[in-house]
Amino acid sequence: MSVVRLSRYFLPVLREDPAEAEIVSHRLMLRAGLIQQAAAGIYNWLPLGFRVLKKIEQIVREEMDRAGAIEILMPTIQPAQWWKESGRYDDYGKEMLRIRDRHDREMLYGPTNEENVVDIFRRHVKSYRQLPLNLYHIQWKFRDEIRPRFGVMRGREFLMKDAYSFDYDFAGAKRSYENMFLAYLRTFRRMGLTAIPMVAESGPIGGNMSHEFQILASTGESVVYYDAAFEELDLAAEDVEVEALTRLYAAVEEKHDPERCPVPAERLRKARGIEVGHIFYFGTKYSAPMGATVTGPDGREVAVEMGSYGIGVSRLVGAIIEAYHDERGIVWPEPVAPFRVGLVNLRPDDADCTAMAEAMCTRLDRAGVETLYDDTQERAGAKFATMELIGLPWLVVIGPRGARSGLVELRSRRDGTATELGPDAVLQRLCG
Amino acid sequence: MSVVRLSRYFLPVLREDPAEAEIVSHRLMLRAGLIQQAAAGIYNWLPLGFRVLKKIEQIVREEMDRAGAIEILMPTIQPAQWWKESGRYDDYGKEMLRIRDRHDREMLYGPTNEENVVDIFRRHVKSYRQLPLNLYHIQWKFRDEIRPRFGVMRGREFLMKDAYSFDYDFAGAKRSYENMFLAYLRTFRRMGLTAIPMVAESGPIGGNMSHEFQILASTGESVVYYDAAFEELDLAAEDVEVEALTRLYAAVEEKHDPERCPVPAERLRKARGIEVGHIFYFGTKYSAPMGATVTGPDGREVAVEMGSYGIGVSRLVGAIIEAYHDERGIVWPEPVAPFRVGLVNLRPDDADCTAMAEAMCTRLDRAGVETLYDDTQERAGAKFATMELIGLPWLVVIGPRGARSGLVELRSRRDGTATELGPDAVLQRLCG
Repeated sequence: MSVVRLSRYFLPVLREDPAEAEIVSHRLMLRAGLIQQAAAGIYNWLPLGFRVLKKIEQIVREEMDRAGAIEILMPTIQPAQWWKESGRYDDYGKEMLRIRDRHDREMLYGPTNEENVVDIFRRHVKSYRQLPLNLYHIQWKFRDEIRPRFGVMRGREFLMKDAYSFDYDFAGAKRSYENMFLAYLRTFRRMGLTAIPMVAESGPIGGNMSHEFQILASTGESVVYYDAAFEELDLAAEDVEVEALTRLYAAVEEKHDPERCPVPAERLRKARGIEVGHIFYFGTKYSAPMGATVTGPDGREVAVEMGSYGIGVSRLVGAIIEAYHDERGIVWPEPVAPFRVGLVNLRPDDADCTAMAEAMCTRLDRAGVETLYDDTQERAGAKFATMELIGLPWLVVIGPRGARSGLVELRSRRDGTATELGPDAVLQRLCG
Repeated sequence: MSVVRLSRYFLPVLREDPAEAEIVSHRLMLRAGLIQQAAAGIYNWLPLGFRVLKKIEQIVREEMDRAGAIEILMPTIQPAQWWKESGRYDDYGKEMLRIRDRHDREMLYGPTNEENVVDIFRRHVKSYRQLPLNLYHIQWKFRDEIRPRFGVMRGREFLMKDAYSFDYDFAGAKRSYENMFLAYLRTFRRMGLTAIPMVAESGPIGGNMSHEFQILASTGESVVYYDAAFEELDLAAEDVEVEALTRLYAAVEEKHDPERCPVPAERLRKARGIEVGHIFYFGTKYSAPMGATVTGPDGREVAVEMGSYGIGVSRLVGAIIEAYHDERGIVWPEPVAPFRVGLVNLRPDDADCTAMAEAMCTRLDRAGVETLYDDTQERAGAKFATMELIGLPWLVVIGPRGARSGLVELRSRRDGTATELGPDAVLQRLCG
C-alpha cells in the first residue's frame, strides 16, 4: 500500500492564489490541497496535509520516546475547577474557550495541560523514588486568538506536543530540562531544520528558565542572531554536553546588543526565524497550589519540581514550508514529505508507458517507497505543475520515448537535476 | 525501543476495586491503570491504555486504507452554520456541546461530521468522474450524554472513526456500503472479535439502509440471535460475496421472532453483544440541502448519494475487555495488547537472574517484540498479580533456579499453560 493512484486520490489543488493568504506557507498549503478552512483559525487537513502532519507527529513522538518521556493522552475538554486551583482561570482571559455543559458545569477546551497533568500526578505519585517522570501527549488545543491568521501558523485549533517533567529537586529538574533541550535540537534536525534555542520570557506558563526554539526560514517572522556553532552541532554523540549548548549565544533582534554580544563577528550569524517550540522550568508554580507533593528520602513532603515542553506540530507544517519552497511550490525535506516519489505517466493512453509505469509501481510498492502515481489524463504541463506545487522530493517521469528504450527520468525537486536511468538504477538511487 | 522497563514506566495499578465502576471493563481499566477520569465521561489515557487505543486505531486505519478510503482530519470545533444548513442544529438537542467564541459566533464540538465533510466535498468535487470517493478520519467527538457511565463505553469525549462515501447513483452507493460492510467484518476480526452485523434503525443520522455491528461478549449489553454462518466467514478471499452477507440473519432480542426466524434451530446462535460500529446509507439527506451536487454524464446536476460509517475506537477498548477477561484481570488478544510480553525478573538482586533478564531484553528488543520488563523490587506475588491484571498475552518468568540451569518459564495468559524453555526456544515461540 505504498503507492497511491492520483486518479483515486483526493488532491484538490488550486490554480489561482487564494486571496485570503498573506504568507507563502498559507498560500501554498491552500493551493497544494493540504488544508481547507472550516472557520477562522480552524482547518480541515486534507489527505496530503494529513500525511505531512502525521510524519511530523511521528518524528516528535520518536524523539520524545528516545528521551525517556512516556506518552499519554489527555482530553481536549477539562473541568474549570483545576484552573481555579492553580489560579490561572481568571488570568487566561478570552483566549480560553470556556464552555458550559448541559448541567451548567464550567468546562473549557484546554489551551495547555499543566493543571491536567498535575491532577494525574497527584493522584498516583507519592514518593521521590517514583521520579524522575516525564509524561507527554500530542493533542489538539484551542486558543481563541482574537485575530487568527497565517493559516496553521496562528490557528485557533492546533496540534501540540506538550511534555511535563516531574523531579524531586532542582538538580533533577535541570537535568530534565537539559534532556528536553537536546531532544528538541534532535527533533528539528530530523525534519531537516536548523533550530536555534534562545533564552525567553516565560509568558503565561510562568517560570524562570525558558528557551524558545526558532527554526531558520528566509520568510521568518523575526530576526535572530546566533553563534555559528549551532550549525555544526554533533547531536548524534551519546555524551553531548547539553549544559554548554544552553549557554551558546542566540537572541532575537530586540534583545541583541552588538556592544555586549560575546560572539566574535566572524562567528555571528543573522537570519530570520519562526518559533516552533518552547520549553519552561517553573519549579512548584503548579504543584504547590494543587498539592502535588512527594515524600523525600528524609520523610518530608515537598512540592514536586516541574517543567513543560511544547512543540507546535501543526504549526511546523507551515514553518517547514516557509523554510523550504521556491517560486513553483513546496520543496519538502524527505523526512516529512507526504510521498517520497511522484511517478508521472506522461501518456496513460500509450501501452508501453502504462506497462512501464505499472511495473515501476509494483517495484516501488514492494520496496516500501511512498509514491503518488499520476495516472490521470491531464496534459504533461499540468502534471508537472501539480508535482512541483506539492513538492515531492523525487519525480520519476515516464514518457513514450523512454518507454521504448527502457529509460525513465529521475528528477530532484530540490536542485532540479534530472537523469535518465533504467528502472533498476532508479530503485537503487531511491533505496540504496 | 521495543522494551520498556517497569521501574521507569508509569503504571498506576489499583489493588482495590474502584467504587464508581459498574461494569467489568470500567473496573479493569481503572485498576490496570489504563485510564483516569478527568470529569464525568471524560478520560485521560494513561500509558498502557494509550498503547491499546493506538493499536486499535491502527488496525481500523489499515482496513479503511485497504478498502480504498482516504484519510483526512476534520477539526473538533465546527461552525453552527453548517448544521443550520442541514437542518440538524435544532434536532440534535442538548447532546450537542454548543459553544460561543469570543466574537459570540455560534460553534459546537462535533458529535459527528456529515456536515463538515459535505462542506469539503461541495467546494472541490463537481463531476461524476471524481467519484466514487470515501473520506474518513479518526478524531475526538463530544456528545453531552445526560448520564455518562460505564467508563469509555459511554463517555462524553470519545474517539471515533467516521468514513463518508460519495457516489453518483444508488448502485454506486450500494457498492460503497457493501465495501464498508466487508471492511468492518475484517477490522473486528483482526482484533480477535466476532462481529455480528444487524439491520438497524438509523436514528439521528437518518437513512434507509443501516447495519449495527455488535461484537460478542458474555457481559454484553444486549442479547443477539444470529446465523452460525457468521462464525465461519472466509473474509480473506478476494471475491467475498458481500451482498449475500448483508442478508444473513441476525437480530437483537426485541426484534427476534422465533416464529418467523429463517434460520434452522441448529444453526441459530444466541449470545450477548456490544455495539461498536454503525453504517448508514442515507442518499441525499445532507447533500441536497447543502448543495453537494455533481454533473452527470448527461450534463445534469444531481445531489450526490452518501453513506456514513462509524467505529467507536475508544469504546472498543472497553468492549474488547468485556469480551476478554477473567477473574484475575484482562486477557488481551495479541493484536491489540499494549505489550506482547511481560518479562518478570523474580530476583533483581540476584546477579544470575538479572544477567539473564538483561540478555533476554536485548534479544526481545532486537526481534522487535514489544515487552514490558518488570525490573522492580516488588515481591513475586505482587508482580504476578500486576501482570495478570494488565493481561499481556505472554509472560516470561526468570527465577534463580532457572537462571542457574539456563531456563525460563513461558506462560500463556489466555490458557495459563506454562513451559520451561531456553531463551532460544522462547524467541522462536514468540517470533517463529
